[in-house]
Amino acid sequence: MVLSRPRAIHLVTDMKLKNANFSFEIQAQQGRARAGVFHTPHGEILTPVFAPVGTQASVKAITPAQLNEMGASLILANTYHLFLRPGDDLVAEMGGLHSFMNWPRPILTDSGGFQVFSLADSRKIDQDGVTFKSHIDGSLQRLTPEKSIEIQENLGADIIMAFDECAPPDDRAYNQRATARTHAWAERCLAARKRPDQALFGIVQGGVFADLRQQSAEFIASLGFPGHAIGGLSVGETKEEMNAMLEVVEAVLPQDKPRYLMGVGAPVDLVNGVLRGVDIFDCVLPTRLARHNAALTRTRRLNLVNAAYARDEHPIDESCACYTCQHFSRAYLRHLIVAREMLSATLLSIHNLHTLLQLTRDMRQAILEGRFDQFADEFFQQLAASPDEAQREPADEPL
Amino acid sequence: MVLSRPRAIHLVTDMKLKNANFSFEIQAQQGRARAGVFHTPHGEILTPVFAPVGTQASVKAITPAQLNEMGASLILANTYHLFLRPGDDLVAEMGGLHSFMNWPRPILTDSGGFQVFSLADSRKIDQDGVTFKSHIDGSLQRLTPEKSIEIQENLGADIIMAFDECAPPDDRAYNQRATARTHAWAERCLAARKRPDQALFGIVQGGVFADLRQQSAEFIASLGFPGHAIGGLSVGETKEEMNAMLEVVEAVLPQDKPRYLMGVGAPVDLVNGVLRGVDIFDCVLPTRLARHNAALTRTRRLNLVNAAYARDEHPIDESCACYTCQHFSRAYLRHLIVAREMLSATLLSIHNLHTLLQLTRDMRQAILEGRFDQFADEFFQQLAASPDEAQREPADEPL
Repeated sequence: MVLSRPRAIHLVTDMKLKNANFSFEIQAQQGRARAGVFHTPHGEILTPVFAPVGTQASVKAITPAQLNEMGASLILANTYHLFLRPGDDLVAEMGGLHSFMNWPRPILTDSGGFQVFSLADSRKIDQDGVTFKSHIDGSLQRLTPEKSIEIQENLGADIIMAFDECAPPDDRAYNQRATARTHAWAERCLAARKRPDQALFGIVQGGVFADLRQQSAEFIASLGFPGHAIGGLSVGETKEEMNAMLEVVEAVLPQDKPRYLMGVGAPVDLVNGVLRGVDIFDCVLPTRLARHNAALTRTRRLNLVNAAYARDEHPIDESCACYTCQHFSRAYLRHLIVAREMLSATLLSIHNLHTLLQLTRDMRQAILEGRFDQFADEFFQQLAASPDEAQREPADEPL
Repeated sequence: MVLSRPRAIHLVTDMKLKNANFSFEIQAQQGRARAGVFHTPHGEILTPVFAPVGTQASVKAITPAQLNEMGASLILANTYHLFLRPGDDLVAEMGGLHSFMNWPRPILTDSGGFQVFSLADSRKIDQDGVTFKSHIDGSLQRLTPEKSIEIQENLGADIIMAFDECAPPDDRAYNQRATARTHAWAERCLAARKRPDQALFGIVQGGVFADLRQQSAEFIASLGFPGHAIGGLSVGETKEEMNAMLEVVEAVLPQDKPRYLMGVGAPVDLVNGVLRGVDIFDCVLPTRLARHNAALTRTRRLNLVNAAYARDEHPIDESCACYTCQHFSRAYLRHLIVAREMLSATLLSIHNLHTLLQLTRDMRQAILEGRFDQFADEFFQQLAASPDEAQREPADEPL
């Protein structure tokens, strides 16, 4: 793949892609797990897939060439952040996100909803939308379903998301109200969208309540989106609750469209998700852990600042094929961390992202070869035998 | 070139390289400018050459693969920093610097002298060496000529430096004392060294005083080092003073050995240096400027945070072949800077380092083709026509 210099590919040009279409083929299925191909105007996404997060149009500390080398296909960017800075109009003027950040493969933007509810100050929700203060400069801003779509059309990602409200998972009354609002907003997003070269996904909400999830999945599925997202999970509920909600939703959503589990990226959650019919995942976990000096393997989390690694000549993971594991020892990585060298974030991000990308590739291959049950069994056995827990996220940085 | 995983190549192995030798061939000469090849145990250095600085065994924000892609050959690491952290014994145990930081090409370590005089606290100099407090933890440390050599032998670079005292350039009495001490220490370094696979360079001092520089060059040249460094410049003196000192020293140092101008890296200084017989340069300037949001071209310095670049679709330098200029606009780089994304340091470092590496490659080619006079004339004409000054260093970070 040639990562070429950004050109002035303005919206006008993108609008010519009238015939660009999206299609999802399921190549193999085992239980509820599927291996598929999602075709987009910027190329194929082989599923199951993990999407690295480039919040502000940059996967933190990583170049597109490095993302390409680790085999990333789909990446995510955040509407809330790019709306506030540098502004979606500027990104459009620079030819859209693909050109701006030099990622010629598929991109997904979220709707901004989640960040408004987790990052912004003084937010006021009404039936029409949300007014809030920017976390950057305190300026008063407003997002509505129509505005979210307008921003996402300016950004120009291949997959865009309906504007939704994400409620605390265990507040039933709140989830009832938020789900109703999310459904009304989903219809408005569908009505507002203009670009035929973007696939708009609807989002299922409903917290940890099976009946709300079921109703939400039924309603969202009825609207005819080309793909569906499952929102409001991995936000405080238990693994068992997450798995139960995935099962409820899986039974309702159409089989022939891709399913995206938003904001979920621990290895165990990827395996649990694929077992329950999820095709697409994204999470800041691998790059955030990297900036907190932690290396992720499928079953462990290594805190590399630990003195035990000071003279450890082994790579993070002997079985890993990433650039970092092929070239650097734990001792060197620890030195970079202790000496506060920026390169530690880059090398650990490369490893952590590669770990999740390779896990989804291996799951895909196992499904294609009809041995995914065995793959999952082995994964959980290894996890149970692992000396530490690989599931918690560091909480000292906002999502 | 394969950048392979670090192996346990301990000192024992390195000591087998008894037949490794260093030789310097001058391939073409024009005036005092030379194009040469310096052969080292880790490969050839084509001169004139610029050496990126990896202070703490990492060229800040850059991977060895990226250094390789931009055509770096020689890189520098700092004895003072590595002695304090992670410790030269640890680096030796991990197989030496080449293996530790995964740089299989030539490495140069300085002696630690310059940093002791510029970074350390409460230093006390005596005839035998320097006692000082670590800038990291305040611990009391001592460096002597013998200790500097011992550390550098543990680190295992191809080119190592004699321990010297760097005085303020315009204090004549201090420079007389410091030069005398530097000369005595140079002899002790020669006597102390044991590894035959390292080339020990002597350092000429003498501030901005032609007679002291002349005496120092004569004395250091008499000791038979395989290469010579010119220290104590680019530390506050004028360009005219630097050039005058280079001319004094050039007339004395043997023609058939490489000359290294320490800590100098502004484009104009590289051209001035090559015009005066310098073969090797190093400087933190390109990577430091990158972390201060400045992009370097041969004749300009662009502060990319400037609002004028917000919607600028051009690369930093249309004529530049680096990864950054081939793939990213000024608008995107400015966005990364404003959004405080680490990737800005990486992309600007790639560009700035490439600019200096390419400048030395182009000077080398011009010398080989007998058109270096013309090259230098054109360079100075373009510099004179440039809208801003490309010579100042940001002063807000210690060397």
